[in-house]
Amino acid sequence: MTANHPLRRYQPLPLTQVTVDDEFWAPRMRANRERTLPAVYRQLKETGRIDAFRLDWRPGVEPAPHIFWDSDVAKWIEAASYSLATHPDHALEARLSEVVKLVASAQQPDGYLNVHFTVVEPDKRWTNLRDCHELYSAGHLIEAGVAHFQATGERTLLDAVRRYADYIGSVFGTEPGKKRGYCGHEEIELALVKLYRVTGEARYLRLSEYFVRERGRQPYYFDLESRERGEAPGDFWAKSYAYCQAHAPVEEQTEVVGHAVRAMYLYCGMTDLAAESGDAALLAACQRLWEHLCLKKMYITGGIGPSKHNEGFTTPYDLPNETAYAETCAAIGLVLWNHRLLQLDCDSRYADVMERALYNGALSGVSLDGERFFYVNPLASGGAHHRQDWFDCACCPPNIARLLASFGSYIYSQSEDGLAVHLYVQGEAEATLADGTRALVRQQTRYPWEGAVRLTVDPQPSADFPLRLRIPGWCRNYALGVNGKPVQPIEEKGYACLRRTWSPGDTVELTLDMPVERMLAHPSAAQDCGRVALQRGPLVYCVEGVDHPVSVHQLALSDAAELECRLDPDLLGGIVVIEGEAAATDPTPWSCALYLPAGEVAQFPVEMRAIPYYAWGNRDPGEMTVWLVRH
Amino acid sequence: MTANHPLRRYQPLPLTQVTVDDEFWAPRMRANRERTLPAVYRQLKETGRIDAFRLDWRPGVEPAPHIFWDSDVAKWIEAASYSLATHPDHALEARLSEVVKLVASAQQPDGYLNVHFTVVEPDKRWTNLRDCHELYSAGHLIEAGVAHFQATGERTLLDAVRRYADYIGSVFGTEPGKKRGYCGHEEIELALVKLYRVTGEARYLRLSEYFVRERGRQPYYFDLESRERGEAPGDFWAKSYAYCQAHAPVEEQTEVVGHAVRAMYLYCGMTDLAAESGDAALLAACQRLWEHLCLKKMYITGGIGPSKHNEGFTTPYDLPNETAYAETCAAIGLVLWNHRLLQLDCDSRYADVMERALYNGALSGVSLDGERFFYVNPLASGGAHHRQDWFDCACCPPNIARLLASFGSYIYSQSEDGLAVHLYVQGEAEATLADGTRALVRQQTRYPWEGAVRLTVDPQPSADFPLRLRIPGWCRNYALGVNGKPVQPIEEKGYACLRRTWSPGDTVELTLDMPVERMLAHPSAAQDCGRVALQRGPLVYCVEGVDHPVSVHQLALSDAAELECRLDPDLLGGIVVIEGEAAATDPTPWSCALYLPAGEVAQFPVEMRAIPYYAWGNRDPGEMTVWLVRH
Repeated sequence: MTANHPLRRYQPLPLTQVTVDDEFWAPRMRANRERTLPAVYRQLKETGRIDAFRLDWRPGVEPAPHIFWDSDVAKWIEAASYSLATHPDHALEARLSEVVKLVASAQQPDGYLNVHFTVVEPDKRWTNLRDCHELYSAGHLIEAGVAHFQATGERTLLDAVRRYADYIGSVFGTEPGKKRGYCGHEEIELALVKLYRVTGEARYLRLSEYFVRERGRQPYYFDLESRERGEAPGDFWAKSYAYCQAHAPVEEQTEVVGHAVRAMYLYCGMTDLAAESGDAALLAACQRLWEHLCLKKMYITGGIGPSKHNEGFTTPYDLPNETAYAETCAAIGLVLWNHRLLQLDCDSRYADVMERALYNGALSGVSLDGERFFYVNPLASGGAHHRQDWFDCACCPPNIARLLASFGSYIYSQSEDGLAVHLYVQGEAEATLADGTRALVRQQTRYPWEGAVRLTVDPQPSADFPLRLRIPGWCRNYALGVNGKPVQPIEEKGYACLRRTWSPGDTVELTLDMPVERMLAHPSAAQDCGRVALQRGPLVYCVEGVDHPVSVHQLALSDAAELECRLDPDLLGGIVVIEGEAAATDPTPWSCALYLPAGEVAQFPVEMRAIPYYAWGNRDPGEMTVWLVRH
Repeated sequence: MTANHPLRRYQPLPLTQVTVDDEFWAPRMRANRERTLPAVYRQLKETGRIDAFRLDWRPGVEPAPHIFWDSDVAKWIEAASYSLATHPDHALEARLSEVVKLVASAQQPDGYLNVHFTVVEPDKRWTNLRDCHELYSAGHLIEAGVAHFQATGERTLLDAVRRYADYIGSVFGTEPGKKRGYCGHEEIELALVKLYRVTGEARYLRLSEYFVRERGRQPYYFDLESRERGEAPGDFWAKSYAYCQAHAPVEEQTEVVGHAVRAMYLYCGMTDLAAESGDAALLAACQRLWEHLCLKKMYITGGIGPSKHNEGFTTPYDLPNETAYAETCAAIGLVLWNHRLLQLDCDSRYADVMERALYNGALSGVSLDGERFFYVNPLASGGAHHRQDWFDCACCPPNIARLLASFGSYIYSQSEDGLAVHLYVQGEAEATLADGTRALVRQQTRYPWEGAVRLTVDPQPSADFPLRLRIPGWCRNYALGVNGKPVQPIEEKGYACLRRTWSPGDTVELTLDMPVERMLAHPSAAQDCGRVALQRGPLVYCVEGVDHPVSVHQLALSDAAELECRLDPDLLGGIVVIEGEAAATDPTPWSCALYLPAGEVAQFPVEMRAIPYYAWGNRDPGEMTVWLVRH
């Protein structure tokens, strides 16, 4: 396998090999199975997205199937498939089978599979790749087909999307007579790599590579295409193809630009291709883009894309809090991308970003009860930002569903010679190493509430292999022991590497110091100057109006204030709160003034209580802020 | 006179009675005469706004006269007239006379006077009062006609606008057969009061009152009017008539809403009418609106209207700094309105707001050289906000020109029995009191750079009258003497009231303590929490990038830092700078991090230099902020 993946030395342990039974993720995954999946299905059904695959829409009937409805259904199929893979459920399996059959039934004789462009605008197939998400929807169908096959062994959808991919391959490419197009919303690139990996058919990898490599080359396909539609290319609302990362060939791109979700999905595809092909230039582009993003354009929550205008990126260090767009799907995309980068060489900086987004800016996208969602994830709110049951553009709910349903696959990787633990989550994993050794690993931990992790390693038989344990970037001190004896491990790219002969019942004790940290943002992030954010372990905290007698925006936290952590099992599903004394402004002198000399304004102490950011917006609606005034 | 103005006990000393020869305003007024007026004329000429009055536009020619071009020309006429009134200038007089004749020549036989609706859309006269500024432009023409007559004695434009007003009076009103309309952009209301005052014709006052009182009554005229155009009223882009303060009858309005300039001009008209009619309900509405504005919606600079979307108001305490719209015209409108309120009962709180806007958010609208303008006046900038020569929507440049040309009239008022000094500006004023006494007052002061003011009072003959001297709201301590002897004055509504028999050569010595103040904003103003603004006397300060080695957004000012004032005669036309030590963040540890624990980040001292806000944007373009991090 290594020969085929010259840059990808690690592979995620598939979710079927992993169980999660901790107190943090397991309840969220249960809510995802029991509440989110049914809620999303209900919305898909009620809004007509599923029935649209009957292809019985006729002109004049409202609503007409929307151009990317297919992708919402596809993501639900994918999520439900992941859920089935770990939690058999006959009712869900039957429902899924029914939906899958309906979707497959919409395939046209030539292999095409898209509701809108089959029934609403059949004459416009492939005429507007820039705006119409046609290949994007195809990509999600492919991911769904792969996931459904892997979960159930059923080939209905996999076969359908293979035929669809083959048809797409007959339409697009550099060969004479083919369209040299690519999608305005990337997604098919990474999907085709998945299809290649499950089928072993190299033509899908080549097609993915075509889409990635053709992107941004001149003359711009989107120019040609819009002229063919009789439109002036300059009339494109976004003005620049940077909006969809098609302004320059991908290997020349140096800055993360445009629509954030599109960017993440493209970079996933680029990373997949770099891993498969060993193309150093493509990998270098990925790393350049990663540094640009993570050093200049990422919120502390792992949210990305500050601007509503383009649902995406602006200038370096432009990280406004209250107007942060930080779409849930973009944070999920950040997880997907960093998970891919992490497989290359097990560098913990990628796991750090993945963990940051997972525990904060992605997880915030779904309510604790699993039934309400944030599309937009600001870092401050005046009280008007609320979770919703659904959205007209409904990409986020099924996306968070598929992330949670597949969460187990983000925890471990195996390499040819060993095992790596990226995330600390109580549960078990079973890996089969290259030499055939089966290794069972059990984690016992209350992470992220506590920093102690006890791993039991059960190889059958005893075996010599390196066990890599990630030392999170947030952790400044840790202690490590094996079978109760302290060890000084070698650190490799942020992982403590324990190489020894492991025998059944061996234990590893890792203790990560997890104090509350007052975090500062880079001084060029103007919106955060003079402010601190509280972080403990992987969790970024925020303060909510409901916990405070004054506006949270005026809470000023002194560097000297003692901050205490306390597990509150009854609050928000059980969380560790951070409490301490903050200062607020005396309201008395303000009855007749909007501005006053500082000397005439006193401050008074207020008990501050911070909660994890992911848990905000689950109680009485109100104010919230991540960045507190530093006093 | 009092009988006719039951609520207006004071009258501004007209600008012809006042000279300004200080070091602050006199140079700005000279730049206004010598640079701004010619520059605005040149732009009006080059863009076709003046020649449009030839009415020789024909369909197909670009550009077609815009719907409110007339008002730009009218404001220039008004500004040039004020300038002529105090500074005779034959060339300007001739140019003005030419423009005035051209404007008057465009009047139609029925009295109508509007270029766009005469040549471009003659069939659409009075069909869209909501959007088309027709009566707004009429109002500015009326103000121009009044000013030109008062400055030159020439009646050409005054007679034209009287005919126009009479024609308007024949079209609008509650009488059967008349349209019950009013303008979407208020202005004609205050203009008609001016026309009434200069002509003594009560019908202009009644027409103004009609426009004010009809506004916002149901059924909404804008509803009827849009239906007549075949448009659904709900299609109005702004969604609510609050945009143009036409959502409710004016005497019922309680909150400052909508487009800021429109609001200010309406409130000017309401105040004028309340003053003329003695209507307590109308006055109460004005006072209610004033409190709402000044306690909840005004920037510390006197800028108003935070939102670009509606060029106006949002919610209480929503005062974003970098995205502040704070149109120059809105700050000017705030000056105009508070100047009117001040005449009612000489309450210094109105003078405080007038002074705040004059010295800060209005004056910032024009460059020191008089040739470049801000339309938008943010309180922070990342470096991309620059002054411009002109704007497509060019309301601001001629508006700041007329304000500066008439600045002398804002300094003093006279009442039946005495004289009030609102602003401290070196120069002279001559008042004729009710009993015929002529009183010459001379101010000697370096205000706003220093707080000492020496007034020489020269009545002819000696006379007993009260001299009111404003004690600015920003001043916490002051000393007052007469002929070198300390006095303890009676304070009336923020004015030190000196009643005595004044003899020629009497002097009054007022010393206003003028320390640097660290100002705080109301704690509900979330954007300013944890920040201080520097103010000294009437001047709000800011820091500019060009003076600092680090981003101004990260400058943190300790409460303990000593701040020193220093007159720098060579900087920005001569200003007092405020200097002291601020802290900035050590840039070293950030090469590989976007977020860091506070304990790992050191701070280092930086020499901070603050300059008056009005003077920003006159050097190398760059960052700016008014609100500094409070450390």
